[in-house]
Amino acid sequence: MIIRSLRFKMVAIGKCSSIYRTSPEFDFPETSSRKLGLSKLPGKSFGFSVSSSEVKTSFIGPLRAIEASRTSHVNGKAEKFQRAGCDSNEDLPTNDCNGFAGKGVPQMSTIGNSTNIVWHKCSVEKCDREELLQQWGCVIWVTGLSGSGKSTLACALARGLHAREKLTYILDGDNVRHGLNCDLSFRAEDRAENIRRTGEVAKLFADAGVICIASLISPYRKERDACRALLAEGDFIEVFMDVPLHVCEARDPKGLYKLARAGKIKGFTGVDDPYEPPLTSEIVLRQNQGLCDSPDDLADIVISYLDKKGYLKA
Amino acid sequence: MIIRSLRFKMVAIGKCSSIYRTSPEFDFPETSSRKLGLSKLPGKSFGFSVSSSEVKTSFIGPLRAIEASRTSHVNGKAEKFQRAGCDSNEDLPTNDCNGFAGKGVPQMSTIGNSTNIVWHKCSVEKCDREELLQQWGCVIWVTGLSGSGKSTLACALARGLHAREKLTYILDGDNVRHGLNCDLSFRAEDRAENIRRTGEVAKLFADAGVICIASLISPYRKERDACRALLAEGDFIEVFMDVPLHVCEARDPKGLYKLARAGKIKGFTGVDDPYEPPLTSEIVLRQNQGLCDSPDDLADIVISYLDKKGYLKA
Repeated sequence: MIIRSLRFKMVAIGKCSSIYRTSPEFDFPETSSRKLGLSKLPGKSFGFSVSSSEVKTSFIGPLRAIEASRTSHVNGKAEKFQRAGCDSNEDLPTNDCNGFAGKGVPQMSTIGNSTNIVWHKCSVEKCDREELLQQWGCVIWVTGLSGSGKSTLACALARGLHAREKLTYILDGDNVRHGLNCDLSFRAEDRAENIRRTGEVAKLFADAGVICIASLISPYRKERDACRALLAEGDFIEVFMDVPLHVCEARDPKGLYKLARAGKIKGFTGVDDPYEPPLTSEIVLRQNQGLCDSPDDLADIVISYLDKKGYLKA
Repeated sequence: MIIRSLRFKMVAIGKCSSIYRTSPEFDFPETSSRKLGLSKLPGKSFGFSVSSSEVKTSFIGPLRAIEASRTSHVNGKAEKFQRAGCDSNEDLPTNDCNGFAGKGVPQMSTIGNSTNIVWHKCSVEKCDREELLQQWGCVIWVTGLSGSGKSTLACALARGLHAREKLTYILDGDNVRHGLNCDLSFRAEDRAENIRRTGEVAKLFADAGVICIASLISPYRKERDACRALLAEGDFIEVFMDVPLHVCEARDPKGLYKLARAGKIKGFTGVDDPYEPPLTSEIVLRQNQGLCDSPDDLADIVISYLDKKGYLKA
């Protein structure tokens, strides 16, 4: 995996901000908001980087933006940044009884089947939590066939990052079916809903500042891309477990291929339902060349990516 | 709020554990796993406490238990502890290619509509993340009428805890309708599903080690108790915003009472749908006595509770 990176750093105090480009190297310059001595209090400071790689042509590094109207130039292209908070101290609670429930009438909206709902903005935002955790909240979306090693990679990744004192959380496709998604079957529409909900929850974890490792077969490109689209640019890192079907089927750790071949499971990915391999994954992990990469070796590739892209610093 | 507390501390190394009672005071003895110099590596150590209060007769402090068969005595009653992990290093990934996807055939199960699903256990567990964060993952469930100040309290609480370098995340009843629950309406069954899903996600956040602040009207006792039942004893802290209907309606910060009285919203809690006040909340916050508690004052009551019960230490 060869990665080129263009670096930009942004520092903001309240609504004032500045942007400058740093060296095209992996390591961050020693100018994080912490080293600059900026406050850790909510809404006071943040930094960001913009990166590009040969794996994915658009910029994929963690992106912290300021105002919807701000435009910057990345790889020669003008890019619109999306607002990611931490630029104001609006909506602080008032200190009088009448104002306890908020002043004024907030904007009402209709979202899907929900009407009369209001977005409650809070003064502690994503970047504040990231500053506290000294990491960037993101989603590592691990996709691949059943038996390709997604869950094992997720565990190795969680262990490797925990050893570096980084906070991770695994959303495992099977595990969430024990709770949040226990009402869903394996029918096509329910599998899609399983992925949608997992993507939405992963987004919440990233917003919480956590490095969320989502491990799901997620066979369809459209559904994976829909989850990617939920997050800010750079906050979604797709890891493709590129293991051939015959290898996965030979492993068959859960005995599911055998059941599928016997016709006891219908619509099983790789047997009678397609797997659409990602075209622009941030990271592709292969194990089919006779090489014997351990789970920890593969996790190290992902951790190295995160480290070099600046996800493991605030 | 008068709280009595009986203290138990448990320390475990691997699968070995011991339990002893400490003084019936608020502050923890200086024998946390960190002070004992126990390892921060996954699955190595944890501590717990069992407390009781006059607000709730059963024990409500953070409870870390070891084995399902262990029995202890709290308030004179025999209590069964539920296993909460961190007592083993099982399921570490193997280091050979064949074993990448896990050795053996894991236990399959059927949960709700999901069949052929497997629980993937990971070596980094809740107590490891809590050790990292120096706090106990839990759910603070804020319930009350519309306009009672739930969201405002949640923000004040997040701010107050962030200032103490504690990681929080707010699940706001309205906010989750913008994403995860955007497919749900305000029909009775969808409101129930909104609460169920929020409870399940809150549980995940608590498992991640986060202090999750769930802010929802959640008018029915049965649904709130179902969310409580998802979590280990002591990991669910119910905060009742005990503000009379006429006060909430006079505030009407979103103009919803006006719409409900005009018949433009049906099934609105407090107008044409009941609110069932909690009977055994851990914390009740009142604002109807002419006292002028600011949001920060009320948040301080909750933070003080968390502090005294030991949630703000690992």
